[in-house]
Amino acid sequence: MNIEARISSLGLTLPQAPKPVASYVTCVAAGNLLFLSGVLPFRDGKLTRVGRVGCEITIEDGKEDAAMVVLNALAIVKDAIGSLDKIRRCVKVTGFVSCGEDFYRHPEVINGASDLLFQILGENGRHARAAVGAVSLPLNSPVEIDFIFEVAS
Amino acid sequence: MNIEARISSLGLTLPQAPKPVASYVTCVAAGNLLFLSGVLPFRDGKLTRVGRVGCEITIEDGKEDAAMVVLNALAIVKDAIGSLDKIRRCVKVTGFVSCGEDFYRHPEVINGASDLLFQILGENGRHARAAVGAVSLPLNSPVEIDFIFEVAS
Amino acid sequence: MNIEARISSLGLTLPQAPKPVASYVTCVAAGNLLFLSGVLPFRDGKLTRVGRVGCEITIEDGKEDAAMVVLNALAIVKDAIGSLDKIRRCVKVTGFVSCGEDFYRHPEVINGASDLLFQILGENGRHARAAVGAVSLPLNSPVEIDFIFEVAS
Repeated sequence: MNIEARISSLGLTLPQAPKPVASYVTCVAAGNLLFLSGVLPFRDGKLTRVGRVGCEITIEDGKEDAAMVVLNALAIVKDAIGSLDKIRRCVKVTGFVSCGEDFYRHPEVINGASDLLFQILGENGRHARAAVGAVSLPLNSPVEIDFIFEVAS
Repeated sequence: MNIEARISSLGLTLPQAPKPVASYVTCVAAGNLLFLSGVLPFRDGKLTRVGRVGCEITIEDGKEDAAMVVLNALAIVKDAIGSLDKIRRCVKVTGFVSCGEDFYRHPEVINGASDLLFQILGENGRHARAAVGAVSLPLNSPVEIDFIFEVAS
Repeated sequence: MNIEARISSLGLTLPQAPKPVASYVTCVAAGNLLFLSGVLPFRDGKLTRVGRVGCEITIEDGKEDAAMVVLNALAIVKDAIGSLDKIRRCVKVTGFVSCGEDFYRHPEVINGASDLLFQILGENGRHARAAVGAVSLPLNSPVEIDFIFEVAS
């Protein structure tokens, strides 16, 4: 089963690749590495929700947003290299969670992204990861995730 | 026109490459990738200004600081590889903006860096980017930017 | 003297490599680069301490935590590639410090990591670095550090 078929079999759909919200591009290849711009949880051109995780929104919602980020990221990769089947590996995920100073459950939120990457890409979806608290994020997004993929040359 | 001539034609000057403020180096090459240390907006050896964007300083000032960071970054690259004309591409920019919990306009601030990279390097200046809110930054700097460049071998 | 002997000669011991606290892996190799997951200061399976640097805990303690992170990172690298003697270089260190909005001494804290990397790896331990303030970190850890190593193929 190819990657897009697996996405469909999970009942999910790739969104339109998001447009940069400023003067940069959505991803740049250097050798076999594909560096993505920080990805926000857009659905139909709008953020799924706004606010800080653990304050205005729940961990469960933040986790769902992190999963939505993955679909946006894969849409960007597909746009860039033509097919998701050329992904060799998700190398690194850096997940920023907008939250307050007493929030310590960032890993649970970013698991929404990690779990979906594994469901979609299998062993090639297992990545190194950091989860970090941000005092705020662009557009008041609850999460922003940075990705490095290794792709076939 | 070479890159340094383009910098002059914009009415700008490369500063002295900043010295690390602690026990590390300003950049490390790995293969064709040049990883820079987080760059602050130094001018004549001092931060252009201090404070949080949207609190003590304006977005417009923060944007100017982000542009100053780019000149410092290019000074570091020149020191490291001898000539800015060996830059193949600016691959990734991670812009940390010191701000409060109700600040959501990080992309505008980091545009100060992205726009100048494009003015100086042309298409090779188009990069992947993340913009993130930091509760505070070293020396109370309003911005700190991380760069990865691809350079000729 | 090999690297593990140097660690012993400093009176230090490699801990057990920490297990991921969520659905990802501790490191991923891409070409000669080894990307580690964000590393926390674990000792005997527990965080050395919790809280924000400059608030609940001192800079001196945060610096010690940053050094503990390095030992955990090297334990991860050893697990992944079999021997620390295969490290060519520590390329990049991104140090997140949990702190308040009026804390500006992140570099001093992350020096705890940078200094120890240099003591253990010598010139190969000199890295590019960023130090950034985080509003909070997973498990209320005072520091979290991201590493990229270059390793022999």
